[in-house]
Amino acid sequence: MKNLANVAILGASGYTGAELVRLLSRHPGVRIGALTADRKAGEKYGDVFPHLAGLDLPGLVTIDDLNWDQHDLIFCCLPHGTTQEVIASIPRNKKVVDLSADFRLRDLAAYEKWYGHPHRAVDLQDEAVFGLTELYRDEIAAARLVACPGCYPTSALLPLVPLVEQKVISTGNIVIDSKSGVSGAGRALKEGSLFSEVSEAIHAYGVANHRHVAEIDQELGRAAGAPVIASFTPHLIPMNRGMLSTIYVELVPGKSAEDIHATLSGRYGEGEQFVRILPMGEVPATRHVRGTNHALIGVVADRRPGRAIIVSVIDNLVKGASGQMVQNMNLMLGFEETAGLMQEALFP
Amino acid sequence: MKNLANVAILGASGYTGAELVRLLSRHPGVRIGALTADRKAGEKYGDVFPHLAGLDLPGLVTIDDLNWDQHDLIFCCLPHGTTQEVIASIPRNKKVVDLSADFRLRDLAAYEKWYGHPHRAVDLQDEAVFGLTELYRDEIAAARLVACPGCYPTSALLPLVPLVEQKVISTGNIVIDSKSGVSGAGRALKEGSLFSEVSEAIHAYGVANHRHVAEIDQELGRAAGAPVIASFTPHLIPMNRGMLSTIYVELVPGKSAEDIHATLSGRYGEGEQFVRILPMGEVPATRHVRGTNHALIGVVADRRPGRAIIVSVIDNLVKGASGQMVQNMNLMLGFEETAGLMQEALFP
Amino acid sequence: MKNLANVAILGASGYTGAELVRLLSRHPGVRIGALTADRKAGEKYGDVFPHLAGLDLPGLVTIDDLNWDQHDLIFCCLPHGTTQEVIASIPRNKKVVDLSADFRLRDLAAYEKWYGHPHRAVDLQDEAVFGLTELYRDEIAAARLVACPGCYPTSALLPLVPLVEQKVISTGNIVIDSKSGVSGAGRALKEGSLFSEVSEAIHAYGVANHRHVAEIDQELGRAAGAPVIASFTPHLIPMNRGMLSTIYVELVPGKSAEDIHATLSGRYGEGEQFVRILPMGEVPATRHVRGTNHALIGVVADRRPGRAIIVSVIDNLVKGASGQMVQNMNLMLGFEETAGLMQEALFP
Amino acid sequence: MKNLANVAILGASGYTGAELVRLLSRHPGVRIGALTADRKAGEKYGDVFPHLAGLDLPGLVTIDDLNWDQHDLIFCCLPHGTTQEVIASIPRNKKVVDLSADFRLRDLAAYEKWYGHPHRAVDLQDEAVFGLTELYRDEIAAARLVACPGCYPTSALLPLVPLVEQKVISTGNIVIDSKSGVSGAGRALKEGSLFSEVSEAIHAYGVANHRHVAEIDQELGRAAGAPVIASFTPHLIPMNRGMLSTIYVELVPGKSAEDIHATLSGRYGEGEQFVRILPMGEVPATRHVRGTNHALIGVVADRRPGRAIIVSVIDNLVKGASGQMVQNMNLMLGFEETAGLMQEALFP
Repeated sequence: MKNLANVAILGASGYTGAELVRLLSRHPGVRIGALTADRKAGEKYGDVFPHLAGLDLPGLVTIDDLNWDQHDLIFCCLPHGTTQEVIASIPRNKKVVDLSADFRLRDLAAYEKWYGHPHRAVDLQDEAVFGLTELYRDEIAAARLVACPGCYPTSALLPLVPLVEQKVISTGNIVIDSKSGVSGAGRALKEGSLFSEVSEAIHAYGVANHRHVAEIDQELGRAAGAPVIASFTPHLIPMNRGMLSTIYVELVPGKSAEDIHATLSGRYGEGEQFVRILPMGEVPATRHVRGTNHALIGVVADRRPGRAIIVSVIDNLVKGASGQMVQNMNLMLGFEETAGLMQEALFP
Repeated sequence: MKNLANVAILGASGYTGAELVRLLSRHPGVRIGALTADRKAGEKYGDVFPHLAGLDLPGLVTIDDLNWDQHDLIFCCLPHGTTQEVIASIPRNKKVVDLSADFRLRDLAAYEKWYGHPHRAVDLQDEAVFGLTELYRDEIAAARLVACPGCYPTSALLPLVPLVEQKVISTGNIVIDSKSGVSGAGRALKEGSLFSEVSEAIHAYGVANHRHVAEIDQELGRAAGAPVIASFTPHLIPMNRGMLSTIYVELVPGKSAEDIHATLSGRYGEGEQFVRILPMGEVPATRHVRGTNHALIGVVADRRPGRAIIVSVIDNLVKGASGQMVQNMNLMLGFEETAGLMQEALFP
Repeated sequence: MKNLANVAILGASGYTGAELVRLLSRHPGVRIGALTADRKAGEKYGDVFPHLAGLDLPGLVTIDDLNWDQHDLIFCCLPHGTTQEVIASIPRNKKVVDLSADFRLRDLAAYEKWYGHPHRAVDLQDEAVFGLTELYRDEIAAARLVACPGCYPTSALLPLVPLVEQKVISTGNIVIDSKSGVSGAGRALKEGSLFSEVSEAIHAYGVANHRHVAEIDQELGRAAGAPVIASFTPHLIPMNRGMLSTIYVELVPGKSAEDIHATLSGRYGEGEQFVRILPMGEVPATRHVRGTNHALIGVVADRRPGRAIIVSVIDNLVKGASGQMVQNMNLMLGFEETAGLMQEALFP
Repeated sequence: MKNLANVAILGASGYTGAELVRLLSRHPGVRIGALTADRKAGEKYGDVFPHLAGLDLPGLVTIDDLNWDQHDLIFCCLPHGTTQEVIASIPRNKKVVDLSADFRLRDLAAYEKWYGHPHRAVDLQDEAVFGLTELYRDEIAAARLVACPGCYPTSALLPLVPLVEQKVISTGNIVIDSKSGVSGAGRALKEGSLFSEVSEAIHAYGVANHRHVAEIDQELGRAAGAPVIASFTPHLIPMNRGMLSTIYVELVPGKSAEDIHATLSGRYGEGEQFVRILPMGEVPATRHVRGTNHALIGVVADRRPGRAIIVSVIDNLVKGASGQMVQNMNLMLGFEETAGLMQEALFP
């Protein structure tokens, strides 16, 4: 056992923590050394998540109970806001993969605007690498602190960044209409997450105002070399897992929907294990990635000349959260990038 | 009983037929005189739809079995294509409310392009009135043949037509992203309608190519006085009923999102029983109209200057189909427009 | 308006309160005079339940704000335990329809055993009538205080009581396996009611230990004239509404499954509007009663000689809760028993 | 590659076929050599099941196209009835794992009674081993033809057989109330499998008359050494995967519910990887086994003296079908019994 990397998961009592445990339980090079959950400290993990009761796991403890020396890498699934202070307290020789929004935004003013308070760990923010693996692979491999993007940005940026970088689409007219499963809201007790409030229905929320758009603007702006503002609307869908983004784009004059397809196919070609571009004109469904780290992207020419529609799907808990965390850990610790992540989708 | 209007329902074995029966069963002025379903002729209606077994209804017969003289008005829920020939055979002194696409398009070339064959009842097409009640109320009241719109056009045109008419929004940059419950696909046996293919998932279909967009273009073009091409993408949601359209619009210079709100509030004011404009900045959910003939519309200013986002919800089987049919019948036969339609939503 | 009965609903911010409002909004003889919800006092009802925002309703107030004189009848949808003290404070000349468990059990010892404390309004308990309408119609019509049964007892007792009374089945071997939609758990914030904890899954709960069995035992014992203990297991089903009980019974020697069918058909014959016995050998589905006050019951002979299987369905929020409350109110105030309750099921 | 066992899957276009492919794709010792589907022959497998499009798989062919010599073991997922003739045509030196009902019943008269025609491969029926792995492990390891049980019998027999064998429970009063996800109905086009017919509802079917009870009676009778007739009712639940059986049993005089728990804990102890007995008084949920080959069993003492309630859950497509097929293949080909089957459940 001594050759296994020892990881700790902070905030392990939520769905993304449980998903990390599920994925890591079959990882050939990793051992879960500690699981924290402040309010449930003292409980067995299998009592909090009975679907994982068959695993040999440590019990839940508080963060204060941890001995950082024992761990090679820390996964952080804590709420926004508290994360920055916890991560600031981790010794600097420990690698960290964070899922909160605390270190995603490079612009301190943008952080303060969207999250309502000044950043409390400015030096760490400088150091953090944006953890969308396919876009920042080399930086992630060399990073100490990786800030994994939100699920919405992951689904939108994978197709959009290459198109903006290569100037295939206009940056002034991007519409991202996203649909998410309910697990994205986590296990917290909110009226809006109750079965009877969600099932047999759909609604939009955070219209024109969802925090994730700050990450989208940031990365599109970086790809464009100039500020970008995207239209973005998230919707809640009566399903556990899955995220689909329908993206409406305007082509740069002279470019066609086929150019979009070619650009994405070139960008995500043979080397990419987790991003797949469907044949021109075909679109994916979320059920085709359920439980996997895959992103599927389809491109269709719009009826309106000079425009195209892109459809992108991921599992919000895997490529949109815990799977991408493991993918990043693999790079940071020198494992195969796909280690622990090669499952087929669970359908039906 | 002799003062009740006698109606027949053609194609009564589908979901829209059953929904007509549900609504008409409590209508104070109407009696269901005949129900047809060619393949199920001879069966009791309560065997085909046990949830309606408690009603005193005629058995299913074939269309050939009908005696048109007995009926004051014919509801037609037949498939596209066959409808035009059946309606051509109905005596011209009988009123008809049709739910198929056969008489919705005024342009014969558009019909042929989208439906793949020349129209077979051209004179009737001239006479048909587009049955979006709030937009064509007077024409419907005077019509013999009303062609009710599809559910997607109903959800999109209710907010968009007044905005185009009043030149509040640009006609060159309209994006309609729609989400529908599965009942919209009907009771036909299709692999894509199986529970295991639909539940716990979402996908887009007919991207940039769905037939309903022909109706949307037609009515927006009429409102604009010039051709309009809209971007439109329908999605299938794992729920029985409900339709939500998220509409991204560009404002005419000098106009604001508040102007959109004011225009819609003015257009659908006190007199309108079934369309309700939410307070500025609020958006509706489909569960709020489940089982009702209501349309709820919300308006939000987009982050991108000069743009707004509109969210519109209906129950696809009621305002998007059978409820609007009854609403039109009420106008055509001189009943209160709301007769038989005043139920509150079923939630949860 | 002065001829309408004025009713108040205590605890109107839960699902059963909203369902009462939905049903009463179309009742020809009733006006909703007050709605209470302690923690949401001061809010508009349409903000708490947007699906009812189109109704003209009083705002939410606290119970202390009520003037009992203004109301003819009080609907009580408060939690178990607090109910008895609130009802004790209502003037004795006001009629009360209660949905809590507080007044269902006649035996004080049974109450204390199942609910963990001595009863606090013993005199009222003596007076209360068990509100299963079809079994206690005359008593309810004359009652001041009616204690409506739980949804599980309603679904089980409707078929079982006549069979025990008429000695068609043995009382020593009754198994009731019940399945309920999630709305039965109410709108309270519980981890077990979250969408992701419930959807795509089924589990049993309160096995051999659910409080509702006390009511079942009580009424079966009364029908038998001797103590009865039934086996009872409730299950949670990923659906909003609906309850199905599968009941396994042993026939008294000489009796057959057909005798069960004949007994139930005789008991719930022409006069009963809301209970329907299916043809021998057929079984009902919950979708056939969605949104209605109906109970459907089917009877099948078991493969094991001398045994039968009975399947009973209701909508847990209507016949299992608010619909039965209205049905009882109709009797207590002299309305038609079916007033406000004649809707067809919403399917799909 | 030459050391991998080469398997063929007959009837690969259904859900159980796809599930076999999913499980075998990660099996370290097996290669999928052929996939058949008569009506879809010529199609790519990834077009029929896009969630598996990332795998390198052979295209679909007809059974006539197969060269049996190339395969070491044949998985058969064909419909009941046709299976026996196909299997009769397979060379006798090839091992076969069958999922149909054709070879499950040892009694030819029982087969004819339940399936409506005389058996057409009587000699094979003699040879077939009943494929409930935990009960017939040694026979399966030595078998050429294994007839895997249905999902309902798997969930019921795992707890019941040891209790009958050890005379802990009476064989005269067993009630099995089972609940299944919709995927058990397969991908065939049936009105009853449509989303709108299944979602938001529950119903029983095949009451007292479902074919699977023949297997249950057979195996319970064998365990008892005398004929057993069980009461059995299956129900359809609006979920894709999962099966829960609630089993009501009468204890042999002198035995207690704790004896049931001890007997099952002894029978399924350390050595069993896939069956887990929960602590006394706890019951499992289907979400805890979603996507896995596990069976979880809970035991509760009933309120009625001398009786107990057992709750058993499996994933109907894994332990109830394809997972058990792989488990049996592992025994027949000498692999670790758990090879390819060690995934944690997908929750939420």
